[in-house]
Amino acid sequence: MYPFSIDVFAARNCWYVASFSRDVTRTPMERWLLDEPVVLYRKENGEPIALEGRCAHRHFPLGEGKLVGDNLQCPYHGFTYAPDGQNVRIPSQDRPSAKCRIKSYPVVEKWRWIWIWMGDPALADPALIPDHGDIGLDDPKLVTDEVLHEELDARYQLIHDNLMDLTHVAFLHQNTLGGGSEASASAKVTETEGENWMEGERIIQNIPTTPHFAGYLGYDGLCDRIIGQRYYLPALHFGWDKYAYPAGHAEAGKIFGQLLVYHGITPARRNSAHYFFATARDFGQEAQEEMRAATSAVIREDVWGLSHVERMLRACNDEMPPEYSARSDTQQLMARRKLEKLIASEMKMAAE
Amino acid sequence: MYPFSIDVFAARNCWYVASFSRDVTRTPMERWLLDEPVVLYRKENGEPIALEGRCAHRHFPLGEGKLVGDNLQCPYHGFTYAPDGQNVRIPSQDRPSAKCRIKSYPVVEKWRWIWIWMGDPALADPALIPDHGDIGLDDPKLVTDEVLHEELDARYQLIHDNLMDLTHVAFLHQNTLGGGSEASASAKVTETEGENWMEGERIIQNIPTTPHFAGYLGYDGLCDRIIGQRYYLPALHFGWDKYAYPAGHAEAGKIFGQLLVYHGITPARRNSAHYFFATARDFGQEAQEEMRAATSAVIREDVWGLSHVERMLRACNDEMPPEYSARSDTQQLMARRKLEKLIASEMKMAAE
Amino acid sequence: MYPFSIDVFAARNCWYVASFSRDVTRTPMERWLLDEPVVLYRKENGEPIALEGRCAHRHFPLGEGKLVGDNLQCPYHGFTYAPDGQNVRIPSQDRPSAKCRIKSYPVVEKWRWIWIWMGDPALADPALIPDHGDIGLDDPKLVTDEVLHEELDARYQLIHDNLMDLTHVAFLHQNTLGGGSEASASAKVTETEGENWMEGERIIQNIPTTPHFAGYLGYDGLCDRIIGQRYYLPALHFGWDKYAYPAGHAEAGKIFGQLLVYHGITPARRNSAHYFFATARDFGQEAQEEMRAATSAVIREDVWGLSHVERMLRACNDEMPPEYSARSDTQQLMARRKLEKLIASEMKMAAE
Repeated sequence: MYPFSIDVFAARNCWYVASFSRDVTRTPMERWLLDEPVVLYRKENGEPIALEGRCAHRHFPLGEGKLVGDNLQCPYHGFTYAPDGQNVRIPSQDRPSAKCRIKSYPVVEKWRWIWIWMGDPALADPALIPDHGDIGLDDPKLVTDEVLHEELDARYQLIHDNLMDLTHVAFLHQNTLGGGSEASASAKVTETEGENWMEGERIIQNIPTTPHFAGYLGYDGLCDRIIGQRYYLPALHFGWDKYAYPAGHAEAGKIFGQLLVYHGITPARRNSAHYFFATARDFGQEAQEEMRAATSAVIREDVWGLSHVERMLRACNDEMPPEYSARSDTQQLMARRKLEKLIASEMKMAAE
Repeated sequence: MYPFSIDVFAARNCWYVASFSRDVTRTPMERWLLDEPVVLYRKENGEPIALEGRCAHRHFPLGEGKLVGDNLQCPYHGFTYAPDGQNVRIPSQDRPSAKCRIKSYPVVEKWRWIWIWMGDPALADPALIPDHGDIGLDDPKLVTDEVLHEELDARYQLIHDNLMDLTHVAFLHQNTLGGGSEASASAKVTETEGENWMEGERIIQNIPTTPHFAGYLGYDGLCDRIIGQRYYLPALHFGWDKYAYPAGHAEAGKIFGQLLVYHGITPARRNSAHYFFATARDFGQEAQEEMRAATSAVIREDVWGLSHVERMLRACNDEMPPEYSARSDTQQLMARRKLEKLIASEMKMAAE
Repeated sequence: MYPFSIDVFAARNCWYVASFSRDVTRTPMERWLLDEPVVLYRKENGEPIALEGRCAHRHFPLGEGKLVGDNLQCPYHGFTYAPDGQNVRIPSQDRPSAKCRIKSYPVVEKWRWIWIWMGDPALADPALIPDHGDIGLDDPKLVTDEVLHEELDARYQLIHDNLMDLTHVAFLHQNTLGGGSEASASAKVTETEGENWMEGERIIQNIPTTPHFAGYLGYDGLCDRIIGQRYYLPALHFGWDKYAYPAGHAEAGKIFGQLLVYHGITPARRNSAHYFFATARDFGQEAQEEMRAATSAVIREDVWGLSHVERMLRACNDEMPPEYSARSDTQQLMARRKLEKLIASEMKMAAE
């Protein structure tokens, strides 16, 4: 399926964001992840649980079910499942059956999101979740915010493509972010990568501090900005925008403000996706509502744009003329290939 | 298609409920039955007619047509058909053509429903309709009611499955019927079957008379309840709930009240179905509205549940993991196999 | 696809109506034509332009784009195209690429419609557009009107079929045109045809002048009516309805009024179509609104009818029993065959 060059859908042996913490409660919730029905709820002690969202008996959607203690009961014939997916009650008979079970997915609640492992549970090592220390989510000096969750009517890879080609900023976001992007585009980018990540960073020297932020930052002179982004394949993009005093300033090089952003991206159905967007920053702590409005407006522009691309792809039944790629697409194309390889090697492993 | 294990859709050489009598009038009505477009109307003498709902000329939907006497005229070019499906007028030429005809389906109006035969008309023996004497529909002591007709967004076999596994009552109907079901579940069931029917009956002794009905029945002591259901494959389920004085009572064994229910089930499209639900009873004759509200609330719970199962099946493109069956599913599985055999033998006969 | 007997969709090397002039402006507009996304706009000098409605870079729908002078800019990454389809700007790099281009379609604005050539541009000879002199569209004595544009939820050939079998008038249009059609049906038709056109004409003698028009025509006696229609395959039907003084009148044979009609038909998607309907007449010039209401009511009946046929075809997955054709369908069947041949020869030519 476009934009992949081979017939793959999504990597499974990895952690994805299933939800923000606040949306998983004692009322079971159906959510499709990687084209599978999942039901999310919490145990009485607050621990999050993710089970297959389909009863093993007659396929009833368990997102409509109800909790009996820590167990989930199907509303059709009352089949009841423990948090490990094992059936523990079949009301019409004396005892449950060991053969009756549904999938249970490993989940880890970290910061204020619920990470889920949709692949082989034996491989679900929590250490594979991007280190929250590295991305500022355990830094008490930062104020964090779960800005929005949207279910996009667009295949997930379109969101990755979008984030891997930031030349869209001056156009798609011209009403929100557009202003500063020209200077940014001319700065040299330093690119690095590892097995499952890619990073780009540029330093833009001697530009005005973003007027909108100057008040919160308590500084309105020229500054250096360090803007970067790291893609942790296949589920998270972490971005930073740091303000430093420029050469010539008494404290040259010292960072006096930073805004961090997080894009959690999870396939929903084959051509829809969950977008979890969050931020962290060390300034404007009192302006939570205002900052949220400003950043969510940007993401909504992406949602608008990507929905239009998806609409076109579907109208063409995915039979478009070959796409034209510019030099600025190099990173995006590398990211696609990297993910394709990841998925292909998983499929090969599964077939062995 | 699930839940059949072989590739079959529906039996054709049998009678199905096409409509309640009240819905077939002098205004033609389109209704899809067994995945075919049918148009239903009445002749001037009131006789019901069922014709193919598609003009032989250019496929116009004849449910949009108008009656000219007993004949049906297409609103596009005026092609007109007699009740036997034969074209009787082509306005642009002097005479109709014997070669121009549409299907005419045998119909029988019995009680207040219209039975239709969608298969080989030569085999349409009205004696094959379930005997209305056996099911109480010609008993003048009973008050009858056409409670509801719904077109479900669910394949028809899900309704049969639902009716063949009554362990759903305590869960899906816990807000309407739930209360008495636990005692019912423990009573021994007597099961019998014939070539094209299956029956189950249980007798529950010394239980309180349903509080809701006690006033109408004029008795609020303990009673015996005889609860049963007969499935006339593939179109009708007939159920009974009879109240008898218990052992020790002066008139022990005498039945002092009965509620009969009828579930007419007819495939509409491949994954939708018509549900015709009716009742008969010998008590509470003055409480028609109240009884109708009570019983239709139960059926609406089934509609809710089965629509959710169908939604899940479609979301999975009918590719679910194998279902788990409990002991209480034995009758349901037998009923599925019986119907599969019926359809398969029809297909074999048609192929010969 | 029905109603073609061979597997063809539409002729490409020919002119179709893409739009009425009034709808093509300085705001780009997406329109699907022959199952391709097209974007229509005007240059600063007013010249109409038709480009592929999909960016060569990442498939963004260019109907959402904006104009920069005469060029069209994609709202996603700012790729910009000249009216000939050539990319002229890739914002992330110094120069555009000659390899980056989208299709540009030849267009001709004639009368108040925009004609488009969806096939091989080398063959786009404006002389192939039906001669507007022949069809009265350059006659200053006639008042013309673009009555309506509708996008029908029906495959385009159903509209041609409809226009090639006018026996539908007495039925589908019985509330608008029905009255006079019986006499019309009995008149002899003169049929002629050329390579890419077909024509039929009938003269009906000594009938009353249409009561509705008598006031505008200033004559309410008997008249002769010359009614005809020419089908310019595959995109336009031109019809005429002329009033002449009858034999015995002092000016016998002189035409004292004419109403001309134009049906522009363009495939949109595989099973939808654009219907552009216009009129010209030499009477009732002051009654534009009233005449428009009267004629558009007729076309809306066609839209209603054809949408119902399309609905039935889709419900049957295009698997209907063979259609029955009457003698009055001869012209329609010839027209279908003629168009099939046209398309097949194009496909053969393309394959060579």
